[in-house]
Amino acid sequence: MYRTHTCGQLRIENVGQKVTLAGWVQKSRKLGGMTFIDLRDRYGITQLVVEADAPASLVEVATGLGREFVIQVKGEVLERQSKNPKMDTGDVEIKVEEINVLNKAVTPPFTIEDVSDGGDDLRMKYRYLDLRRNPLRKALMLRHRIAHEVRNYLDSKGFMEIETPYLIKSTPEGARDFVVPSRMNPGQFYALPQSPQTFKQLLMVAGYDRYFQIVRCFRDEDLRADRQPEFTQIDCEMSFVEQEDVLNTFEGMMRTLFKNVLGVDIPNPLPRMSWYDAMDKYGSDKPDIRYGMTIHELTEKAKGKGFSVLDGAAYIGAISVPGASEYTRKQLDELTEWVKRPQVGAKGLIYIKVNTDGTYKSSIDKFYTPEDLKVLADAAEAKAGDLILVLSGDNKRKVQTMLGVLRIEMGNRLGLRDPKVFAPLWIVDFPLLEWDDETQRFYAMHHPFTAPKPEHEAWFNSNKKEDLERVCANAYDFVLNGTELGGGSIRIHDAEMQKRMFEVLGISPEDAEYKFGFIINAFKFGAPPHGGLAFGFDRVCALFGGSDSIRDYIAFPKNNQGRDVMIDSPSKIDQEQMDELQIASTVKE
Amino acid sequence: MYRTHTCGQLRIENVGQKVTLAGWVQKSRKLGGMTFIDLRDRYGITQLVVEADAPASLVEVATGLGREFVIQVKGEVLERQSKNPKMDTGDVEIKVEEINVLNKAVTPPFTIEDVSDGGDDLRMKYRYLDLRRNPLRKALMLRHRIAHEVRNYLDSKGFMEIETPYLIKSTPEGARDFVVPSRMNPGQFYALPQSPQTFKQLLMVAGYDRYFQIVRCFRDEDLRADRQPEFTQIDCEMSFVEQEDVLNTFEGMMRTLFKNVLGVDIPNPLPRMSWYDAMDKYGSDKPDIRYGMTIHELTEKAKGKGFSVLDGAAYIGAISVPGASEYTRKQLDELTEWVKRPQVGAKGLIYIKVNTDGTYKSSIDKFYTPEDLKVLADAAEAKAGDLILVLSGDNKRKVQTMLGVLRIEMGNRLGLRDPKVFAPLWIVDFPLLEWDDETQRFYAMHHPFTAPKPEHEAWFNSNKKEDLERVCANAYDFVLNGTELGGGSIRIHDAEMQKRMFEVLGISPEDAEYKFGFIINAFKFGAPPHGGLAFGFDRVCALFGGSDSIRDYIAFPKNNQGRDVMIDSPSKIDQEQMDELQIASTVKE
Repeated sequence: MYRTHTCGQLRIENVGQKVTLAGWVQKSRKLGGMTFIDLRDRYGITQLVVEADAPASLVEVATGLGREFVIQVKGEVLERQSKNPKMDTGDVEIKVEEINVLNKAVTPPFTIEDVSDGGDDLRMKYRYLDLRRNPLRKALMLRHRIAHEVRNYLDSKGFMEIETPYLIKSTPEGARDFVVPSRMNPGQFYALPQSPQTFKQLLMVAGYDRYFQIVRCFRDEDLRADRQPEFTQIDCEMSFVEQEDVLNTFEGMMRTLFKNVLGVDIPNPLPRMSWYDAMDKYGSDKPDIRYGMTIHELTEKAKGKGFSVLDGAAYIGAISVPGASEYTRKQLDELTEWVKRPQVGAKGLIYIKVNTDGTYKSSIDKFYTPEDLKVLADAAEAKAGDLILVLSGDNKRKVQTMLGVLRIEMGNRLGLRDPKVFAPLWIVDFPLLEWDDETQRFYAMHHPFTAPKPEHEAWFNSNKKEDLERVCANAYDFVLNGTELGGGSIRIHDAEMQKRMFEVLGISPEDAEYKFGFIINAFKFGAPPHGGLAFGFDRVCALFGGSDSIRDYIAFPKNNQGRDVMIDSPSKIDQEQMDELQIASTVKE
Repeated sequence: MYRTHTCGQLRIENVGQKVTLAGWVQKSRKLGGMTFIDLRDRYGITQLVVEADAPASLVEVATGLGREFVIQVKGEVLERQSKNPKMDTGDVEIKVEEINVLNKAVTPPFTIEDVSDGGDDLRMKYRYLDLRRNPLRKALMLRHRIAHEVRNYLDSKGFMEIETPYLIKSTPEGARDFVVPSRMNPGQFYALPQSPQTFKQLLMVAGYDRYFQIVRCFRDEDLRADRQPEFTQIDCEMSFVEQEDVLNTFEGMMRTLFKNVLGVDIPNPLPRMSWYDAMDKYGSDKPDIRYGMTIHELTEKAKGKGFSVLDGAAYIGAISVPGASEYTRKQLDELTEWVKRPQVGAKGLIYIKVNTDGTYKSSIDKFYTPEDLKVLADAAEAKAGDLILVLSGDNKRKVQTMLGVLRIEMGNRLGLRDPKVFAPLWIVDFPLLEWDDETQRFYAMHHPFTAPKPEHEAWFNSNKKEDLERVCANAYDFVLNGTELGGGSIRIHDAEMQKRMFEVLGISPEDAEYKFGFIINAFKFGAPPHGGLAFGFDRVCALFGGSDSIRDYIAFPKNNQGRDVMIDSPSKIDQEQMDELQIASTVKE
């Protein structure tokens, strides 16, 4: 060992001991003939002192140390004269007797500080240096801690971690697969898994009862800001369970994580909200319930005053923004432009100010008397000082979704979305089916193996569209602070019900056989009732860390073009390798 | 929940309770009007009884149950009249009051018993049924247990599990990479990692100090019996350590695994053997030390008796096979043919029988007197009743390797290789360099980043071949029962030493820059002294389970053609997908 202690370990009790430390030079400064060096490792920082009367050779070495040099020092632990209560090791310093330079360092291209002077691209290129910074180190330590707690919890509940293969088969549905040409089977390809869904269901057929895996998944999608071509899931499946059992088990897991990792108590039991309520009140199937500002329907109350925009709307809804009645004309114009951006898609924005003096001021004063506005304000549960924002349109869910986006924006603007406050909940009672007007058919909202609620079986077997539309699925999402962290369902294990599902989805028996024949066949050999879910592990880590961005919680992420700029990948491969694989590029040079 | 208890849970204390169980029908038999059913789940088997006087409808359901039907039963726990001490639940049975068939099953294509009647291919095709069998279930439970213990141990020692990317860059050296065409970067490819070697060294540069990962690795090699295109490693790296620290840390890990998983105490400290001793005494760098039968050199003592084969040999070695002096002519002929197979490659086999009456009988009686033979027998440490087997040749290491293979074979034949006996050890002091006569240059025995032993630095800097040949590496292998389970090295962290290494290996600075430039550049920013190792996790599991074959310890393995016959992968992909990826197959149809 190059050290007796780490740089985060020494305390006042160690005073007088001779110690050896090793680490990186965080910084070094001269002060009245003395040299102070901050020595850093994963565990912390310890202050080193080379005194003015130290041997000249030692002073010389100390003076020559640059940032990020790797050194080993020997010396005695002294009590500091001016203690630093912000540092764990702030009570002590090392009186240096010997310095061994283990490795020099060229000057890093950006500062290794909590806030670096390096831009995103530069820090991605030198990721191994960026990873030295505290925020990233803490992010990866948190990730390790969460993974470890997940495994301990699931192991204690009888779950077995079982590794499923990464070289699997391309599937005809879902997102795009990454594929891998097989040299031993020319002209054929493996696919990288988008999730271990098929395998985990097979493990239930195989009787493994409780499975989990923290597993990499791959999707060749065009990347958005928080998407990565490879990402990690906590993937789980259980047999002989009903929805209630799955919810209780994984609510327990999340409760344990919050408690053991963050020291946070979350409600027991967790709130549950039906998909319908989430859409009606929050305009989102992943509501942020840290704050109110819920949606109120004004459809009936707002009509009939001669304002054609509202009179012709199928749905009118509003949120009451607390304390925002002082918004200026300019602010309101800006907000109107904001909701008209294509990302939101509203045609316009109606406002009603509920002034603190009891008066109203709105953009629809021409059509609505103060009394009319009071009716609307009461319906929107607005208080004095609130700003009511109203949207309307032809499609209830679309307007609600816009109001949901607006609600999040106003939450951000008002500072209501504190990342240190955690408000998890389950969303349940999803519709099983979604009607698509264009193709005039139903689609599965989750996937075609999701079971309908037993109490809705009669509707499921009905041929009326309105019956099928109201069938709820035994499906559930775990939502935290406006982000979906996980979701799953109880699967159909009964062959007759599966057949009916394909019928409802307009999938012919031949098509079903072609697309799903393998798993349907496996189910014939005795499939138990089962269900499960998967959590997005990168996102769990980010939210636990109080961040929106998953990239800081992945050691070596890709950029938005799917590139690892550090190792410069993907890249061209040798012609020889192409020949061995019997593939050719068709790219026009 | 479909059950109140599992099928492995009920004991005599539960007698009188009303319970609900769920599982698979293992078997069912009629006996004097009663129906006995063995109900199976992951946790065990419980006997169910439908009594002769049960309601007709119940008897009818019970009678209709086939093998592997999935059922739920309700009933009362009774004490058995004839207890079965071999079963955990053997004291009780369930008097069935209700049976719900949760799912029927078609007859499986082979029996779900400890020893199945299905052939390998059939069982691979229906892997999800094969996985129902006890041996595979136990193998995967063992695997989960070992992984969990590994993680707990390493976490307790301050190691962080950090996930490294799977979509990386093709490397110009090493085994063949699997590659992944990038749709977003046409004409370019990712590679799947053969190991996270580069990334774990970067994590040391990044200051993570102690890293581990249980990680999938990929090698596109022609497959041998115990090779898989995807396999799992326990991958580890530490900073500020010397070889001794790495050995102690991972010896501790293995000791904990043996104790906690198998209840076995392994020696503390573990034996260590130099590579030279292993080759000289066992003819292998992965010696099975569960038994003696070591190699003895006879080169000097056997020469000069006029037998040209031995007189002309550069090396003569022998093993003494205990109690095998009674081997018949036929057995000896067969053994001679066995060593002459290309897999061993000997030209012939000389034997000397040390008879129990004190006489000798050998294949070289014409040249050697009984006194001569006694000298050889003494040198081979043969006792009365032993059979001495002698091999010779031009190349000492080659002959020793043949003797090593013969020693393992004789160990197998004599039943000396009990899979329930565990004899782990470290092999250390590997040569750093291997001379290749053909190309007249040195190659790195491990890889070009492995550090020479500090005490051999003068030899390392010498330009004499004999000096360079005797430089030992700070490298080590963990060997168990004749199998290498893991290995690693202390890495070179000093730029000058790395330069010298490339010089010794005949790699020009330009070539080094091209092949290793990225990692060499990263090292310039302050690389700590570091080292690590990796264990073959599949193999660890197999050996802990007392098996030679890793395939039973992988949930969904590939066959020797790299195919997953269950999902029928690899397979052709759509032209549309090929077009999107801008690749074409060059296979001649």
